[in-house]
Amino acid sequence: MINLGVLVSGNGTNLQAIIDAMERGILDSKIGVVISNNPGAFAIERARRQNIPTEIVSNKTFTEKEDYDRRLVGILKDHSVDLVILAGFMRIITHVLINAFPMRIMNIHPALLPAFSGLNVQKKALEYGVKFSGATVHFVDEGIDTGPVIIQAVVPVYDDDTEETLAARILREEHRIYPQAIKLFAEGRLEVKGRRVTIKDSHRTEGSMANPEVTIFK
Amino acid sequence: MINLGVLVSGNGTNLQAIIDAMERGILDSKIGVVISNNPGAFAIERARRQNIPTEIVSNKTFTEKEDYDRRLVGILKDHSVDLVILAGFMRIITHVLINAFPMRIMNIHPALLPAFSGLNVQKKALEYGVKFSGATVHFVDEGIDTGPVIIQAVVPVYDDDTEETLAARILREEHRIYPQAIKLFAEGRLEVKGRRVTIKDSHRTEGSMANPEVTIFK
Repeated sequence: MINLGVLVSGNGTNLQAIIDAMERGILDSKIGVVISNNPGAFAIERARRQNIPTEIVSNKTFTEKEDYDRRLVGILKDHSVDLVILAGFMRIITHVLINAFPMRIMNIHPALLPAFSGLNVQKKALEYGVKFSGATVHFVDEGIDTGPVIIQAVVPVYDDDTEETLAARILREEHRIYPQAIKLFAEGRLEVKGRRVTIKDSHRTEGSMANPEVTIFK
Repeated sequence: MINLGVLVSGNGTNLQAIIDAMERGILDSKIGVVISNNPGAFAIERARRQNIPTEIVSNKTFTEKEDYDRRLVGILKDHSVDLVILAGFMRIITHVLINAFPMRIMNIHPALLPAFSGLNVQKKALEYGVKFSGATVHFVDEGIDTGPVIIQAVVPVYDDDTEETLAARILREEHRIYPQAIKLFAEGRLEVKGRRVTIKDSHRTEGSMANPEVTIFK
Protein backbone atom coordinates (compact mmCIF):
# COMPACT_ATOMS: atom_id res chain seq x y z
CA MET A 1 0.00 0.00 0.00
CA ILE A 2 1.48 3.36 -0.94
CA ASN A 3 2.05 5.98 1.67
CA LEU A 4 1.13 9.58 0.91
CA GLY A 5 2.53 12.81 2.28
CA VAL A 6 0.06 15.66 1.76
CA LEU A 7 1.17 19.31 1.70
CA VAL A 8 -1.58 21.86 2.35
CA SER A 9 -2.05 25.54 3.16
CA GLY A 10 -5.80 26.00 3.37
CA ASN A 11 -9.18 24.41 3.69
CA GLY A 12 -8.08 20.98 2.49
CA THR A 13 -11.11 19.86 0.49
CA ASN A 14 -8.89 17.82 -1.81
CA LEU A 15 -7.29 16.21 1.26
CA GLN A 16 -10.81 15.39 2.44
CA ALA A 17 -11.70 13.86 -0.95
CA ILE A 18 -8.64 11.60 -0.69
CA ILE A 19 -9.50 10.63 2.89
CA ASP A 20 -13.10 9.90 1.85
CA ALA A 21 -11.93 7.69 -1.05
CA MET A 22 -9.70 5.72 1.29
CA GLU A 23 -12.47 5.33 3.87
CA ARG A 24 -14.85 4.05 1.21
CA GLY A 25 -12.25 1.47 0.20
CA ILE A 26 -11.96 2.71 -3.37
CA LEU A 27 -8.42 4.05 -2.95
CA ASP A 28 -5.90 1.65 -1.45
CA SER A 29 -3.39 3.99 0.18
CA LYS A 30 -2.64 5.61 3.51
CA ILE A 31 -1.59 9.10 4.51
CA GLY A 32 1.63 9.04 6.51
CA VAL A 33 1.75 12.74 7.26
CA VAL A 34 0.02 16.03 6.50
CA ILE A 35 2.30 19.06 6.47
CA SER A 36 1.20 22.69 6.38
CA ASN A 37 3.02 26.00 6.24
CA ASN A 38 -0.05 27.56 7.85
CA PRO A 39 -0.83 26.66 11.48
CA GLY A 40 -4.43 27.85 10.97
CA ALA A 41 -5.13 25.61 7.97
CA PHE A 42 -8.41 23.75 8.45
CA ALA A 43 -6.74 20.88 6.56
CA ILE A 44 -4.70 20.24 9.73
CA GLU A 45 -7.92 19.85 11.70
CA ARG A 46 -9.23 17.39 9.10
CA ALA A 47 -6.05 15.31 9.46
CA ARG A 48 -6.20 15.31 13.28
CA ARG A 49 -9.77 14.01 13.18
CA GLN A 50 -8.42 11.00 11.28
CA ASN A 51 -5.46 10.57 13.63
CA ILE A 52 -3.09 11.35 10.78
CA PRO A 53 0.26 12.75 11.97
CA THR A 54 0.59 16.48 11.22
CA GLU A 55 3.50 18.87 11.06
CA ILE A 56 3.57 22.66 10.80
CA VAL A 57 6.59 24.16 9.07
CA SER A 58 6.12 27.91 9.24
CA ASN A 59 7.08 30.13 6.33
CA LYS A 60 9.07 32.20 8.81
CA THR A 61 11.30 29.38 10.02
CA PHE A 62 13.70 29.48 7.05
CA THR A 63 14.93 32.40 4.97
CA GLU A 64 16.01 30.23 2.03
CA LYS A 65 13.38 28.28 0.07
CA GLU A 66 15.81 25.39 -0.33
CA ASP A 67 16.27 25.09 3.43
CA TYR A 68 12.52 25.04 3.86
CA ASP A 69 12.30 22.22 1.35
CA ARG A 70 15.12 20.31 3.08
CA ARG A 71 12.99 20.33 6.20
CA LEU A 72 10.00 19.04 4.19
CA VAL A 73 12.10 16.26 2.69
CA GLY A 74 13.30 15.29 6.17
CA ILE A 75 9.74 14.98 7.47
CA LEU A 76 8.52 13.12 4.39
CA LYS A 77 11.41 10.63 4.59
CA ASP A 78 10.87 10.16 8.35
CA HIS A 79 7.33 9.09 7.51
CA SER A 80 8.47 6.83 4.62
CA VAL A 81 6.35 8.72 2.10
CA ASP A 82 6.17 7.23 -1.42
CA LEU A 83 4.15 9.95 -3.14
CA VAL A 84 3.87 13.65 -2.27
CA ILE A 85 0.47 15.27 -2.84
CA LEU A 86 0.26 19.05 -3.14
CA ALA A 87 -3.30 19.95 -2.19
CA GLY A 88 -3.54 23.72 -2.20
CA PHE A 89 0.02 24.19 -0.97
CA MET A 90 0.67 27.89 -1.54
CA ARG A 91 4.42 27.80 -1.85
CA ILE A 92 6.69 27.37 -4.84
CA ILE A 93 8.76 24.27 -4.26
CA THR A 94 12.39 23.95 -5.29
CA HIS A 95 14.69 21.39 -6.88
CA VAL A 96 15.48 20.13 -3.36
CA LEU A 97 12.02 18.61 -2.94
CA ILE A 98 11.65 17.71 -6.64
CA ASN A 99 14.96 15.84 -6.78
CA ALA A 100 14.15 13.95 -3.58
CA PHE A 101 10.87 12.70 -5.13
CA PRO A 102 11.36 12.61 -8.91
CA MET A 103 8.01 12.06 -10.68
CA ARG A 104 6.60 11.30 -7.25
CA ILE A 105 5.07 14.71 -6.54
CA MET A 106 1.57 15.51 -7.83
CA ASN A 107 -0.25 18.81 -7.95
CA ILE A 108 -3.77 19.79 -8.96
CA HIS A 109 -4.52 23.03 -10.78
CA PRO A 110 -8.03 24.44 -11.36
CA ALA A 111 -7.70 25.01 -15.13
CA LEU A 112 -7.05 23.11 -18.34
CA LEU A 113 -3.30 23.51 -18.43
CA PRO A 114 -1.42 24.90 -20.29
CA ALA A 115 -4.18 27.54 -20.18
CA PHE A 116 -4.32 29.80 -17.10
CA SER A 117 -1.40 28.68 -14.98
CA GLY A 118 -0.41 30.52 -11.81
CA LEU A 119 -2.78 32.46 -9.57
CA ASN A 120 -6.22 34.10 -10.07
CA VAL A 121 -7.10 31.27 -12.38
CA GLN A 122 -10.88 31.71 -12.62
CA LYS A 123 -10.51 35.45 -13.13
CA LYS A 124 -8.15 34.82 -16.04
CA ALA A 125 -10.49 32.24 -17.57
CA LEU A 126 -13.54 34.51 -17.30
CA GLU A 127 -11.68 37.51 -18.68
CA TYR A 128 -10.42 35.48 -21.63
CA GLY A 129 -13.96 34.31 -22.26
CA VAL A 130 -13.29 30.59 -22.66
CA LYS A 131 -16.31 28.31 -23.00
CA PHE A 132 -14.63 25.42 -21.17
CA SER A 133 -12.31 25.22 -18.23
CA GLY A 134 -11.47 22.37 -15.89
CA ALA A 135 -8.86 20.83 -13.66
CA THR A 136 -5.48 19.21 -14.23
CA VAL A 137 -3.53 16.73 -12.10
CA HIS A 138 0.12 16.75 -13.08
CA PHE A 139 3.52 15.65 -11.90
CA VAL A 140 5.54 18.55 -10.54
CA ASP A 141 8.66 19.78 -12.25
CA GLU A 142 10.61 22.97 -11.66
CA GLY A 143 8.23 25.22 -13.61
CA ILE A 144 4.98 26.74 -12.38
CA ASP A 145 2.19 24.30 -13.31
CA THR A 146 4.26 22.91 -16.20
CA GLY A 147 4.80 19.24 -15.35
CA PRO A 148 3.51 16.18 -17.25
CA VAL A 149 -0.29 15.90 -17.24
CA ILE A 150 -1.83 12.81 -15.63
CA ILE A 151 -5.57 13.45 -15.84
CA GLN A 152 -7.80 16.37 -16.79
CA ALA A 153 -11.49 17.12 -16.39
CA VAL A 154 -13.48 19.67 -18.39
CA VAL A 155 -16.55 21.68 -17.41
CA PRO A 156 -18.50 24.31 -19.35
CA VAL A 157 -18.18 27.99 -18.45
CA TYR A 158 -21.53 29.80 -18.43
CA ASP A 159 -22.36 33.36 -19.44
CA ASP A 160 -23.46 34.21 -15.90
CA ASP A 161 -20.53 32.57 -14.11
CA THR A 162 -18.60 34.39 -11.42
CA GLU A 163 -15.19 33.34 -10.17
CA GLU A 164 -16.99 31.61 -7.30
CA THR A 165 -19.51 29.60 -9.34
CA LEU A 166 -16.83 28.50 -11.81
CA ALA A 167 -14.42 27.58 -9.02
CA ALA A 168 -17.14 25.47 -7.34
CA ARG A 169 -17.94 23.62 -10.59
CA ILE A 170 -14.25 22.86 -11.09
CA LEU A 171 -13.71 21.87 -7.45
CA ARG A 172 -16.28 19.08 -7.76
CA GLU A 173 -14.16 17.63 -10.59
CA GLU A 174 -10.95 18.06 -8.61
CA HIS A 175 -12.41 15.85 -5.88
CA ARG A 176 -13.03 13.11 -8.47
CA ILE A 177 -9.80 13.20 -10.47
CA TYR A 178 -7.23 13.61 -7.70
CA PRO A 179 -8.11 10.33 -5.95
CA GLN A 180 -8.28 8.69 -9.40
CA ALA A 181 -4.77 9.90 -10.29
CA ILE A 182 -3.41 8.60 -6.99
CA LYS A 183 -5.09 5.25 -7.60
CA LEU A 184 -3.49 4.98 -11.06
CA PHE A 185 -0.09 5.75 -9.51
CA ALA A 186 -0.64 3.26 -6.68
CA GLU A 187 -1.47 0.56 -9.21
CA GLY A 188 1.73 1.25 -11.15
CA ARG A 189 -0.24 2.19 -14.25
CA LEU A 190 1.34 5.57 -15.06
CA GLU A 191 4.19 5.73 -17.56
CA VAL A 192 6.00 9.01 -18.23
CA LYS A 193 7.73 9.40 -21.60
CA GLY A 194 9.08 12.90 -22.05
CA ARG A 195 6.10 15.08 -21.19
CA ARG A 196 3.46 12.48 -22.04
CA VAL A 197 1.89 10.38 -19.32
CA THR A 198 0.28 7.22 -20.67
CA ILE A 199 -1.87 4.84 -18.70
CA LYS A 200 -1.75 1.07 -18.77
CA ASP A 201 -5.19 -0.48 -19.32
CA SER A 202 -6.72 2.97 -19.63
CA HIS A 203 -10.47 3.41 -19.71
CA ARG A 204 -11.06 5.23 -22.98
CA THR A 205 -13.21 8.34 -22.57
CA GLU A 206 -15.61 8.66 -25.51
CA GLY A 207 -17.63 11.57 -26.77
CA SER A 208 -17.32 15.32 -27.04
CA MET A 209 -18.99 18.42 -25.66
CA ALA A 210 -19.71 21.82 -27.17
CA ASN A 211 -20.55 25.06 -25.38
CA PRO A 212 -22.87 26.70 -26.25
CA GLU A 213 -24.64 23.52 -27.22
CA VAL A 214 -24.89 22.57 -30.89
CA THR A 215 -28.61 22.59 -31.61
CA ILE A 216 -28.66 22.47 -35.41
CA PHE A 217 -27.32 18.95 -35.75
CA LYS A 218 -28.85 16.02 -33.91
CA MET B 1 -30.81 36.38 -44.72
CA ILE B 2 -27.15 37.06 -44.02
CA ASN B 3 -24.62 36.89 -46.77
CA LEU B 4 -21.28 35.17 -46.13
CA GLY B 5 -17.90 35.71 -47.71
CA VAL B 6 -15.68 32.67 -47.19
CA LEU B 7 -11.88 32.89 -47.36
CA VAL B 8 -10.08 29.59 -47.95
CA SER B 9 -6.67 28.23 -48.90
CA GLY B 10 -7.10 24.48 -48.96
CA ASN B 11 -9.45 21.55 -48.95
CA GLY B 12 -12.45 23.48 -47.69
CA THR B 13 -14.12 20.90 -45.46
CA ASN B 14 -15.45 23.63 -43.19
CA LEU B 15 -16.84 25.44 -46.26
CA GLN B 16 -18.52 22.16 -47.20
CA ALA B 17 -20.00 21.81 -43.71
CA ILE B 18 -21.50 25.30 -44.02
CA ILE B 19 -22.87 24.53 -47.51
CA ASP B 20 -24.34 21.27 -46.21
CA ALA B 21 -26.03 23.04 -43.31
CA MET B 22 -27.58 25.57 -45.71
CA GLU B 23 -28.75 22.84 -48.07
CA ARG B 24 -30.37 20.96 -45.21
CA GLY B 25 -32.22 24.13 -44.25
CA ILE B 26 -30.75 24.30 -40.75
CA LEU B 27 -28.64 27.39 -41.47
CA ASP B 28 -30.49 30.34 -42.98
CA SER B 29 -27.73 32.16 -44.88
CA LYS B 30 -26.19 32.35 -48.31
CA ILE B 31 -22.61 32.48 -49.54
CA GLY B 32 -22.02 35.53 -51.71
CA VAL B 33 -18.44 34.75 -52.63
CA VAL B 34 -15.62 32.31 -51.92
CA ILE B 35 -12.14 33.83 -52.16
CA SER B 36 -8.86 31.91 -52.19
CA ASN B 37 -5.22 32.90 -52.31
CA ASN B 38 -4.52 29.48 -53.81
CA PRO B 39 -5.80 28.75 -57.33
CA GLY B 40 -5.45 25.01 -56.67
CA ALA B 41 -7.59 25.01 -53.53
CA PHE B 42 -10.18 22.24 -53.72
CA ALA B 43 -12.48 24.60 -51.82
CA ILE B 44 -12.82 26.59 -55.06
CA GLU B 45 -14.06 23.48 -56.82
CA ARG B 46 -16.59 22.91 -54.03
CA ALA B 47 -17.90 26.47 -54.49
CA ARG B 48 -18.16 26.14 -58.27
CA ARG B 49 -20.24 22.97 -57.91
CA GLN B 50 -22.74 25.09 -55.96
CA ASN B 51 -22.61 27.96 -58.47
CA ILE B 52 -21.15 30.21 -55.78
CA PRO B 53 -19.07 33.07 -57.24
CA THR B 54 -15.33 32.54 -56.69
CA GLU B 55 -12.31 34.82 -56.81
CA ILE B 56 -8.61 34.00 -56.73
CA VAL B 57 -6.34 36.66 -55.25
CA SER B 58 -2.83 35.32 -55.55
CA ASN B 59 -0.27 35.86 -52.81
CA LYS B 60 2.05 37.19 -55.49
CA THR B 61 -0.24 39.96 -56.71
CA PHE B 62 0.59 42.40 -53.91
CA THR B 63 3.83 43.01 -52.05
CA GLU B 64 2.15 44.71 -49.07
CA LYS B 65 -0.23 42.72 -46.88
CA GLU B 66 -2.44 45.77 -46.48
CA ASP B 67 -2.85 46.13 -50.26
CA TYR B 68 -3.80 42.46 -50.47
CA ASP B 69 -6.44 43.03 -47.81
CA ARG B 70 -7.75 46.15 -49.61
CA ARG B 71 -8.40 43.92 -52.60
CA LEU B 72 -10.23 41.42 -50.36
CA VAL B 73 -12.36 44.19 -48.86
CA GLY B 74 -13.23 45.41 -52.36
CA ILE B 75 -14.43 41.97 -53.44
CA LEU B 76 -16.33 41.36 -50.18
CA LYS B 77 -18.09 44.75 -50.46
CA ASP B 78 -18.89 44.14 -54.14
CA HIS B 79 -20.72 41.01 -53.06
CA SER B 80 -22.46 42.77 -50.14
CA VAL B 81 -20.98 40.39 -47.58
CA ASP B 82 -22.26 40.73 -43.99
CA LEU B 83 -19.98 38.22 -42.28
CA VAL B 84 -16.51 37.04 -43.29
CA ILE B 85 -15.68 33.38 -42.60
CA LEU B 86 -12.06 32.29 -42.46
CA ALA B 87 -12.06 28.59 -43.25
CA GLY B 88 -8.46 27.47 -43.40
CA PHE B 89 -7.24 30.76 -44.87
CA MET B 90 -3.48 30.53 -44.50
CA ARG B 91 -2.67 34.22 -44.43
CA ILE B 92 -2.37 36.64 -41.54
CA ILE B 93 -4.93 39.36 -42.09
CA THR B 94 -4.35 43.02 -41.27
CA HIS B 95 -6.21 45.93 -39.71
CA VAL B 96 -7.46 46.83 -43.20
CA LEU B 97 -9.75 43.81 -43.35
CA ILE B 98 -10.48 43.83 -39.61
CA ASN B 99 -11.52 47.49 -39.56
CA ALA B 100 -13.75 47.01 -42.61
CA PHE B 101 -15.63 44.18 -40.82
CA PRO B 102 -15.39 44.86 -37.08
CA MET B 103 -16.60 41.81 -35.09
CA ARG B 104 -17.84 40.48 -38.40
CA ILE B 105 -14.94 38.14 -39.16
CA MET B 106 -14.91 34.63 -37.70
CA ASN B 107 -12.12 32.08 -37.62
CA ILE B 108 -11.92 28.48 -36.46
CA HIS B 109 -8.86 27.06 -34.75
CA PRO B 110 -8.27 23.35 -34.03
CA ALA B 111 -7.42 23.72 -30.32
CA LEU B 112 -8.91 24.95 -27.08
CA LEU B 113 -7.64 28.50 -27.23
CA PRO B 114 -5.74 30.08 -25.55
CA ALA B 115 -3.83 26.78 -25.61
CA PHE B 116 -1.87 25.98 -28.78
CA SER B 117 -2.40 28.96 -31.02
CA GLY B 118 -0.57 29.34 -34.32
CA LEU B 119 0.64 26.47 -36.49
CA ASN B 120 1.47 22.77 -35.86
CA VAL B 121 -1.36 22.71 -33.37
CA GLN B 122 -1.78 18.95 -32.93
CA LYS B 123 1.96 18.44 -32.63
CA LYS B 124 2.06 21.01 -29.84
CA ALA B 125 -0.89 19.42 -28.06
CA LEU B 126 0.57 15.91 -28.25
CA GLU B 127 4.00 17.08 -27.13
CA TYR B 128 2.50 18.92 -24.17
CA GLY B 129 0.58 15.78 -23.28
CA VAL B 130 -2.86 17.33 -22.74
CA LYS B 131 -5.75 14.95 -22.11
CA PHE B 132 -8.28 17.18 -23.91
CA SER B 133 -8.10 19.35 -26.96
CA GLY B 134 -10.80 20.71 -29.23
CA ALA B 135 -11.83 23.52 -31.54
CA THR B 136 -12.58 27.19 -31.08
CA VAL B 137 -14.67 29.58 -33.21
CA HIS B 138 -13.74 33.16 -32.44
CA PHE B 139 -14.07 36.67 -33.77
CA VAL B 140 -10.88 37.88 -35.38
CA ASP B 141 -8.85 40.70 -33.92
CA GLU B 142 -5.34 41.82 -34.79
CA GLY B 143 -3.59 39.06 -32.82
CA ILE B 144 -2.96 35.49 -33.91
CA ASP B 145 -5.92 33.39 -32.68
CA THR B 146 -6.60 35.86 -29.86
CA GLY B 147 -10.08 37.22 -30.57
CA PRO B 148 -13.24 36.80 -28.46
CA VAL B 149 -14.41 33.15 -28.23
CA ILE B 150 -17.87 32.32 -29.60
CA ILE B 151 -18.09 28.55 -29.20
CA GLN B 152 -15.74 25.74 -28.26
CA ALA B 153 -15.89 21.96 -28.49
CA VAL B 154 -13.76 19.52 -26.48
CA VAL B 155 -12.58 16.02 -27.37
CA PRO B 156 -10.36 13.59 -25.45
CA VAL B 157 -6.77 12.99 -26.53
CA TYR B 158 -5.79 9.32 -26.44
CA ASP B 159 -2.46 7.71 -25.56
CA ASP B 160 -2.12 6.28 -29.06
CA ASP B 161 -3.12 9.44 -30.94
CA THR B 162 -1.07 10.76 -33.81
CA GLU B 163 -1.36 14.27 -35.22
CA GLU B 164 -3.65 12.80 -37.88
CA THR B 165 -6.04 10.91 -35.61
CA LEU B 166 -6.33 13.87 -33.25
CA ALA B 167 -6.85 16.31 -36.14
CA ALA B 168 -9.61 14.10 -37.55
CA ARG B 169 -11.42 13.90 -34.18
CA ILE B 170 -11.27 17.68 -33.85
CA LEU B 171 -12.32 18.28 -37.46
CA ARG B 172 -15.62 16.45 -36.87
CA GLU B 173 -16.36 18.98 -34.12
CA GLU B 174 -15.32 21.91 -36.31
CA HIS B 175 -17.96 20.87 -38.83
CA ARG B 176 -20.59 21.05 -36.08
CA ILE B 177 -19.64 24.24 -34.29
CA TYR B 178 -18.82 26.52 -37.24
CA PRO B 179 -22.31 26.37 -38.78
CA GLN B 180 -23.73 26.74 -35.25
CA ALA B 181 -21.68 29.90 -34.63
CA ILE B 182 -22.83 31.39 -37.94
CA LYS B 183 -26.43 30.58 -37.07
CA LEU B 184 -26.11 32.35 -33.70
CA PHE B 185 -24.67 35.40 -35.48
CA ALA B 186 -27.38 35.33 -38.16
CA GLU B 187 -30.05 35.27 -35.45
CA GLY B 188 -28.50 38.29 -33.74
CA ARG B 189 -27.88 36.30 -30.58
CA LEU B 190 -24.18 37.08 -30.02
CA GLU B 191 -23.21 39.92 -27.69
CA VAL B 192 -19.58 40.93 -27.29
CA LYS B 193 -18.61 42.67 -24.04
CA GLY B 194 -14.87 43.18 -23.85
CA ARG B 195 -13.48 39.75 -24.64
CA ARG B 196 -16.57 37.82 -23.50
CA VAL B 197 -19.14 36.67 -26.03
CA THR B 198 -22.49 35.92 -24.43
CA ILE B 199 -25.42 34.30 -26.17
CA LYS B 200 -29.05 35.31 -25.92
CA ASP B 201 -31.33 32.38 -25.09
CA SER B 202 -28.33 30.10 -24.85
CA HIS B 203 -28.77 26.35 -24.57
CA ARG B 204 -26.96 25.50 -21.38
CA THR B 205 -24.47 22.66 -21.80
CA GLU B 206 -24.51 20.40 -18.75
CA GLY B 207 -22.08 17.80 -17.48
CA SER B 208 -18.37 17.21 -17.43
CA MET B 209 -15.81 14.80 -18.86
CA ALA B 210 -12.60 13.38 -17.46
CA ASN B 211 -9.75 11.73 -19.35
CA PRO B 212 -8.67 9.13 -18.41
CA GLU B 213 -12.12 8.22 -17.18
CA VAL B 214 -12.86 8.35 -13.48
CA THR B 215 -13.68 4.78 -12.52
CA ILE B 216 -13.57 4.92 -8.74
CA PHE B 217 -16.67 7.09 -8.33
CA LYS B 218 -19.99 6.23 -9.94
